[in-house]
Amino acid sequence: MSTLSDRLAALRTAMVQQDLAAWIINGTDPHSSEYVADRWTTREWISGFSGSAGSVIITADEALLFTDSRYFIQAEAELKESGFTLMKLHTPGYPDMVQYLNTTFSSGARVGIAKETLTISERDRYAKSLAASITLVPSEDLIDAIWRDRPLVPSTAVLEMAAELTGFSAEAKLAQVRAELAKKGASVTIISSLDDIAWLTNLRASDVVYNPVFYAYLIVGETQAWLCSNLSRYSEEIRSSLAEHFVLVPYEEVAEVIAKEISAEERVYLDFDRTTLVVEEALKSDNLVSGRDITTDLKAKKNPTELEGMRRAHLLDGVALVNFLAKLDTKAGSYTEIEISELLLAERKRNKEFLGESFHPISGFNANGALPHYRATEEHNSTVTGDGLLVLDTGGHYESGMTDVTRTILFGEATVQQKQDYTLVLKGNLALASARFPEGTFGYQLDVLARQFLWDAGLAFFHGTGHGIGFRLNVHEGPQSISPRAITVALEEGMIVSDEPGLYREGEHGIRIENIIVVQPDVTTDFGRFLSFEVLTICPFERTLIEKDLLSETEIAMVDAYHSWVYDELHELVDEAALPYLAAATAPL
Amino acid sequence: MSTLSDRLAALRTAMVQQDLAAWIINGTDPHSSEYVADRWTTREWISGFSGSAGSVIITADEALLFTDSRYFIQAEAELKESGFTLMKLHTPGYPDMVQYLNTTFSSGARVGIAKETLTISERDRYAKSLAASITLVPSEDLIDAIWRDRPLVPSTAVLEMAAELTGFSAEAKLAQVRAELAKKGASVTIISSLDDIAWLTNLRASDVVYNPVFYAYLIVGETQAWLCSNLSRYSEEIRSSLAEHFVLVPYEEVAEVIAKEISAEERVYLDFDRTTLVVEEALKSDNLVSGRDITTDLKAKKNPTELEGMRRAHLLDGVALVNFLAKLDTKAGSYTEIEISELLLAERKRNKEFLGESFHPISGFNANGALPHYRATEEHNSTVTGDGLLVLDTGGHYESGMTDVTRTILFGEATVQQKQDYTLVLKGNLALASARFPEGTFGYQLDVLARQFLWDAGLAFFHGTGHGIGFRLNVHEGPQSISPRAITVALEEGMIVSDEPGLYREGEHGIRIENIIVVQPDVTTDFGRFLSFEVLTICPFERTLIEKDLLSETEIAMVDAYHSWVYDELHELVDEAALPYLAAATAPL
Repeated sequence: MSTLSDRLAALRTAMVQQDLAAWIINGTDPHSSEYVADRWTTREWISGFSGSAGSVIITADEALLFTDSRYFIQAEAELKESGFTLMKLHTPGYPDMVQYLNTTFSSGARVGIAKETLTISERDRYAKSLAASITLVPSEDLIDAIWRDRPLVPSTAVLEMAAELTGFSAEAKLAQVRAELAKKGASVTIISSLDDIAWLTNLRASDVVYNPVFYAYLIVGETQAWLCSNLSRYSEEIRSSLAEHFVLVPYEEVAEVIAKEISAEERVYLDFDRTTLVVEEALKSDNLVSGRDITTDLKAKKNPTELEGMRRAHLLDGVALVNFLAKLDTKAGSYTEIEISELLLAERKRNKEFLGESFHPISGFNANGALPHYRATEEHNSTVTGDGLLVLDTGGHYESGMTDVTRTILFGEATVQQKQDYTLVLKGNLALASARFPEGTFGYQLDVLARQFLWDAGLAFFHGTGHGIGFRLNVHEGPQSISPRAITVALEEGMIVSDEPGLYREGEHGIRIENIIVVQPDVTTDFGRFLSFEVLTICPFERTLIEKDLLSETEIAMVDAYHSWVYDELHELVDEAALPYLAAATAPL
Repeated sequence: MSTLSDRLAALRTAMVQQDLAAWIINGTDPHSSEYVADRWTTREWISGFSGSAGSVIITADEALLFTDSRYFIQAEAELKESGFTLMKLHTPGYPDMVQYLNTTFSSGARVGIAKETLTISERDRYAKSLAASITLVPSEDLIDAIWRDRPLVPSTAVLEMAAELTGFSAEAKLAQVRAELAKKGASVTIISSLDDIAWLTNLRASDVVYNPVFYAYLIVGETQAWLCSNLSRYSEEIRSSLAEHFVLVPYEEVAEVIAKEISAEERVYLDFDRTTLVVEEALKSDNLVSGRDITTDLKAKKNPTELEGMRRAHLLDGVALVNFLAKLDTKAGSYTEIEISELLLAERKRNKEFLGESFHPISGFNANGALPHYRATEEHNSTVTGDGLLVLDTGGHYESGMTDVTRTILFGEATVQQKQDYTLVLKGNLALASARFPEGTFGYQLDVLARQFLWDAGLAFFHGTGHGIGFRLNVHEGPQSISPRAITVALEEGMIVSDEPGLYREGEHGIRIENIIVVQPDVTTDFGRFLSFEVLTICPFERTLIEKDLLSETEIAMVDAYHSWVYDELHELVDEAALPYLAAATAPL
């Protein structure tokens, strides 16, 4: 196995051969995936940094990793003796990538980047912000030639979901896409987004850990559709079922299919944020219309069948959570953080419909819980015992849907501050979940509802309040969100988001309370149609952390109503041994 | 005087001569002003429509006015027999301007527009959205040649504000702009925005009704600055004072100055949203950096002297408001809507520091009050008597600052619904005014605080909650705002906004409660620096409309504290005859 310095040296040799003064690694895959298959872990391969966000610039003399504050500690540890320098993003004294390039190469340079992972939008942003003397050179990936044992494009077997579970057949979804395509005045669209393709085809696989997607491109024309993915992953049965609506093409031939099947006269609808130069260069047509992938909007509004499935997944998950919580000895017990998430996993596994975790569990005790993206490892795995708070953020894939839930669990006795903190976070969770809002409201308009009580107390958390989640798909799914970011996507009936305010006291403890909520119709008045949320998550709050005096009567009634519903839903399904816990945890405050 | 049809015919003749299939009038002036001098009321001159927003397209066969729902009733009335068709914006079945052009001229056309009022941004938007077969032709204004008695560029006398009132001299402000310019890597900026120029030069005039600005361009280079404005408007004294820091140039010579003084090598900082093609075409340099005018950000954060002046203006305005309210007979009186705003104006005029109204007063009784932008006229001027609600939205310019205040006044007896409505609006007003929020918070994050109680009740209002306001300048001032729109401008210390939630029941009544609030520093904690608001407006709420049972104890305490402060501030300044009213209006709830 090559050393990091061998790899850097080999890359620099390749850069010289291509006359490139710098090489950029943006750390994604050809599909702009948030989580990538091993083949595209080029950032880690070259730098040793294993975090899930960051970009690399390599020049003749320097090797730089640009990442954000979530990863500073991890990056500093992992980059030791790597030859890499950590460049702290959004930090005074550190340039961003463009500033670095513009100052370092003020007299001009050719800067290379793999075109297979470079989207049209990213290319355009570089074109706008890089100094005129610097030329961005989208290239074949230099890493490819020097990474000898580079993993192949994964090709896990695909499974077909029945229309009873998905609500619509792939044929029906194709028709929906074509109807929208016509409205946009285009005759063909090329979809690169993996979860969009899984949604449309009703196929699932396991090419990426936790994300049941498969590497593919999908081209949808007016009468034909081409699915470009490794052919060996289909069973004969699925292959023949798919062949009714799709032409099946090998993954590697996407550029050829585009060149052959899309004429120079066609108007092509593309999501520039997710389409790479490989696709753009293959197109003969330059009549491109840019917009969010049609499937992304269709997928976000869960249909009644998907919603029923999600409700069932949350019911099954609630059973596992309550069985787990009932067994947990929070008074005298002692566990490692990993043991705790394993115990919960074991409870989930008892259900036949459970398919696996939906993301890497976060189990963080006290100071570890104050790191919102903490991940316990064999080396760093605190003992959970005595007094303290455990942040436990986990989720499951089920046959009928997916869950993502965070509970903060008290071990031993709570301090006054811990109870106040928890109650302020809970108030925010309740305020968002109980909001009524007019049709057309953007997620960012509601975000403050979850923060207001913390702000009033001079407290704050610095992550979004809610992300969209998929139906038996990725745990992070757009386009909607509840966050301070100016994402102008209206919340619509059937959209699912998380509701997860938190509070993180560095070195002390963390708190996060996460329920999953779905947008539902509410009243219609002279002032228009209103929407509100239905809560999907079925699991008691941590009543021992609730400071009742800080809740209004309305809030107390909300907690009681939620707990009463949790009891009703679960009491016939949980272990008999869990009933005392369930009854106590859901009794009126 | 020519008739509307003469004007249309003359314009069409000119269009034929220029080989133009359509002519667009965007209805603004060369400075992107919200309110324009008579010279640039071209939309009204050609169509007869006197509303303050809308655009016109004229083709060989059609004459179209595009405007939004605020103006539908007015436009339908004013466009009768004008030959114009009303095109309702954001209304199903009506195309927008680009859609209209793209479908009408699908086989191609040359479409003209006056380049003197066309900004770079607007031109770029047309370029992006118009079909490739349509050519936008920025031209000399065709209206100019056919509008015989067209008003000249106004040239009212300018007054210089003392640095004791403005906090900084023009020289100091020039230095601030130059420091920011250097940070942006540019050597010169051209400012078109009239209130920005008034702010920087500390000059005021009356070129536009209610807006104390003067038509000018300002060019700021590293060592020199050029003020392009009609020279006859300066007194000898002001002229010599200005000449220390500015080269004075006639307004009409702006293009020549740009061409002569800015070299092809210079990097030019421009606000593309406010810079017209006249300026762009005059530039030899194409090394342009786009961004918000530097002065806009400096002007938005009021300095301590400006804030003191604003506080004084609000104190004087509070005296006038309370003297007026004390005299108003809301039980047995009978007034026209105009009489009421005249009575308030008369009270304001009693103060020597009052300079004039800061915008056209809105005085709307019952159903008229339900039109947020209602304007009483001699022809449409309801009688205010009996039972009902009056929305009174007015403001004044004072030597030391400006005010903008709305109170909803009860005449006779209130219905249960009116009291509920008023109280829900009040709760929103209080929630925004009392918000604490971290540094970096955008206005749109706070907007929902003012709406949440209405939404809970299935009610809503459909305008922004708050706009920035100027210091002895325009009543609407950017860049900050409190609205659902995704305006990513953080609220910063010294920024002033209005806090004006409302509720409008069509055909019944309107409610709006508007205070002016200023961002001030609040606590600093482990979670960062927090900000909050100070209320500037000093005038009682309408206690007879408050349904106390709908207020929380905290809200009651807030109203009482506000009223106690109002009493303390005003009781030694108002007429003795107004004291009983003031005491009763500000007593604890």
